[in-house]
Amino acid sequence: MNTVTERALIARLVAGMPRSSHQLNRVHESDAELVKIPGTDTILAVTTDGIAEEITTGLYGNPYLAGWMSVTVNASDLAAVGAEPLGLLMSEAIPPDMNEEAVMRLQAGIGDAAKAHRLPVLGGDTNASPTLHLTGTAIGVVRDRWATRRGTRPGDRVFASGPLGLGSAFAFARLMSTSPAGVAYQPVARLPEGQVMARWATACIDTSDGAIAAFDELFQLNEIGILVHRPLEELLHPAALETARVAGLPPWMMLAGPHGEFELLFTVPRVHCEAFTADAAASGWDPIMLGDVVPQAGLAWREEDDWLEVDTTRIRNLFTAVGGDPQRYLEALLCTAPEPASR
Amino acid sequence: MNTVTERALIARLVAGMPRSSHQLNRVHESDAELVKIPGTDTILAVTTDGIAEEITTGLYGNPYLAGWMSVTVNASDLAAVGAEPLGLLMSEAIPPDMNEEAVMRLQAGIGDAAKAHRLPVLGGDTNASPTLHLTGTAIGVVRDRWATRRGTRPGDRVFASGPLGLGSAFAFARLMSTSPAGVAYQPVARLPEGQVMARWATACIDTSDGAIAAFDELFQLNEIGILVHRPLEELLHPAALETARVAGLPPWMMLAGPHGEFELLFTVPRVHCEAFTADAAASGWDPIMLGDVVPQAGLAWREEDDWLEVDTTRIRNLFTAVGGDPQRYLEALLCTAPEPASR
Repeated sequence: MNTVTERALIARLVAGMPRSSHQLNRVHESDAELVKIPGTDTILAVTTDGIAEEITTGLYGNPYLAGWMSVTVNASDLAAVGAEPLGLLMSEAIPPDMNEEAVMRLQAGIGDAAKAHRLPVLGGDTNASPTLHLTGTAIGVVRDRWATRRGTRPGDRVFASGPLGLGSAFAFARLMSTSPAGVAYQPVARLPEGQVMARWATACIDTSDGAIAAFDELFQLNEIGILVHRPLEELLHPAALETARVAGLPPWMMLAGPHGEFELLFTVPRVHCEAFTADAAASGWDPIMLGDVVPQAGLAWREEDDWLEVDTTRIRNLFTAVGGDPQRYLEALLCTAPEPASR
Repeated sequence: MNTVTERALIARLVAGMPRSSHQLNRVHESDAELVKIPGTDTILAVTTDGIAEEITTGLYGNPYLAGWMSVTVNASDLAAVGAEPLGLLMSEAIPPDMNEEAVMRLQAGIGDAAKAHRLPVLGGDTNASPTLHLTGTAIGVVRDRWATRRGTRPGDRVFASGPLGLGSAFAFARLMSTSPAGVAYQPVARLPEGQVMARWATACIDTSDGAIAAFDELFQLNEIGILVHRPLEELLHPAALETARVAGLPPWMMLAGPHGEFELLFTVPRVHCEAFTADAAASGWDPIMLGDVVPQAGLAWREEDDWLEVDTTRIRNLFTAVGGDPQRYLEALLCTAPEPASR
C-alpha cells in the first residue's frame, strides 16, 4: 500500500520520544489517546488539536466558527473512542491587532461549542501571535467499552453516524470562486452517539479530514477494504448533493475533500447489527448502514450496475502534493476518474 | 490593590464559559487545573501552555530550546500542584519553510525534555503555520495532598525550590544589545520536589513569569505580603548576580523580568518547617528559606539596615504597558526605585 504523507511526517516527528507503558493505543491507532491511570481502573481519553491552516486559508474566516471548531474537532476525537467528556483546555494565540468585537465572537464560539458538547472549560492560556491560532485539548473517560481505529475484520458492517460530505461542500463553497451560495456549517461532534457506538463497534474513526481519508486510515490499519452498497444519494448530506449538482461535480467528490463533517465511521460485527441499531434507536439515533468490510483493499461503491473504485491513499496525499492549494486540489481531483472494479 | 492586566484579560475571555462542578480550583487559583473524575477518587491535574511570543521575539531562537521549553512550562505547572506526571500532548504548528535540521532539533528538544521530566508523549498533532507555535498539555494525578496558589496566612514561612533570577538573566543576555556573554538556560521543572512540597505547603506557584509576578499573584489571592529576610545575594542564582554586576543593574531587577526560571515559590506553616526541611533533605533537596508571610501587602527585602519595597503589581503590568518591548521594559524598570518601607 502506498505511503501516507501525513503518517510518514508523524512517524518522523515522534521518533525517539518516550512513550507510556500505561497507554492502550499506539501512534495512529486511535482518534483520542487512551491512558490507564496507574493504581486505578480509570482509563482517560485525551486529545489535542490545533487550528491554524483553516484560519490562514480563510476557511474559518468567521471568528465565531473558528472558536466553535476549536472545540468540536477535539470533542469529535473523544466521540470516536466512545468517551464521556470531562472538560476542555484552550490555548489561544491572538493577534494584538484583532479587534475587540472579533475576540468576543471568537470567545462566544468557544463558549457555545463547550456548552453544546457538555465540555466545561477547565482552563487555558493566552498568547500574542502574528496569526490567530487555537489549540484545544479535550479530556474524557472511557468506561467498560471503547473503540479504536483498529480491530475490524471482513464480514463486519460499516456505518456512518450521519450523512457525509458536508465538510467538503462547505470548503468548496468557502474557497472556490466558482462556487454557488454558501453552505451552512457548524457541526456538533457525536459524543452521545459515540458512547452507544463503543458498546458494539470493532473500529471507529471520525471524518475530521474527510470521509476518504478516514476510510483510507481504516484500510491502512486493518488491511481491509470497504464495499459501499448504499447509493451515494442516500449517504451524502443534502447540501453536499446540491453543491455537487450546481457545480457539475460528480457526487463522490464530496467525500474527497480534506475537510470533514465530524461524523463517525465505524464497523459492527454482522451478528450484532440488529442489537446495535436497536440500542441506537433507543437513544433517538438513526445511523446509516453503508456497506461491508471486505478483504480486498480499497473503497468501491455501486453506480448503476458497476462497481467503481478510487485510490484512497493517492487522494489523501493529494492536498499536500499540490502544496495545500484548494484550486489545484480540485483540478487534480477532477483528473481522478474512478475506475471500474471487478467485485 | 491595583488591577493586574493579565488577570483582567483572562476574566474577560472566560466570561460565559461553562465550568465544571468537579473542578477543585477556580480561575487563577492553581498553576494546573484540578479535576475530580466522577465516580472515582482520582484527581487529575491538567494544564496547557503555548509558546509563541518567546519564539517571535527571538528569546527561544534556538529550536532545541523552544522544544525543551514547550514541555518544561507545562511540567512546571504540574510540579506547582504536587502532581505525579502521567503524560504529555504536543500540538506543533511548523512553518513550511522551516528547514529539516531545525525541525529535528525542535523534536530533539521536546523528546529530551519529555525524558528529563518523565513525561511520556501520549500524542499530539501537527499543523502548518506562518510562524512556529508550540502548545503542550501536561496531565498528571494528585494523590492525598496537593497545593494551589491559595491558602497561605501570615505566620507561614516562604521558600523557593532553588535560586531565583536565571529567567531574567537569560532574557537580558538574549535580548539586550548591551548585555555581556550569554547565560546558560535549560531549566528542569521541579516535579519530584513538587511532590514533597505538596505534603507541607499551604500555597505554591511557579516562577514561570518571573519571581515578582509570582509573589504578586500570591498577594492578590491571599491578601498578604512577604518580608524577605534572606540577603538577595543568597537567593539569586550566581549567573543572575553576575549578569546584574556586569551590566551595572541592581540585583533585585533579576527578580523583575517577565520570564522566569521555573522554580517553585511556596509557603509552609512555621510549625511544620522543621519536618518539611527534613522531608526535603531525605530526597536530596535543599530548598531556600526566603522569609515570612505578613499581613501587610507588598514585597519588602532587607538591604543593609533598611527595608526596601517595590510595587509588584505595577512591575507585573509593566511589560504589557510598554507594548512588550524588552528595551523599553528595562528603561521603565530602571526608573523604578525601591522605596524605604516602614516595617
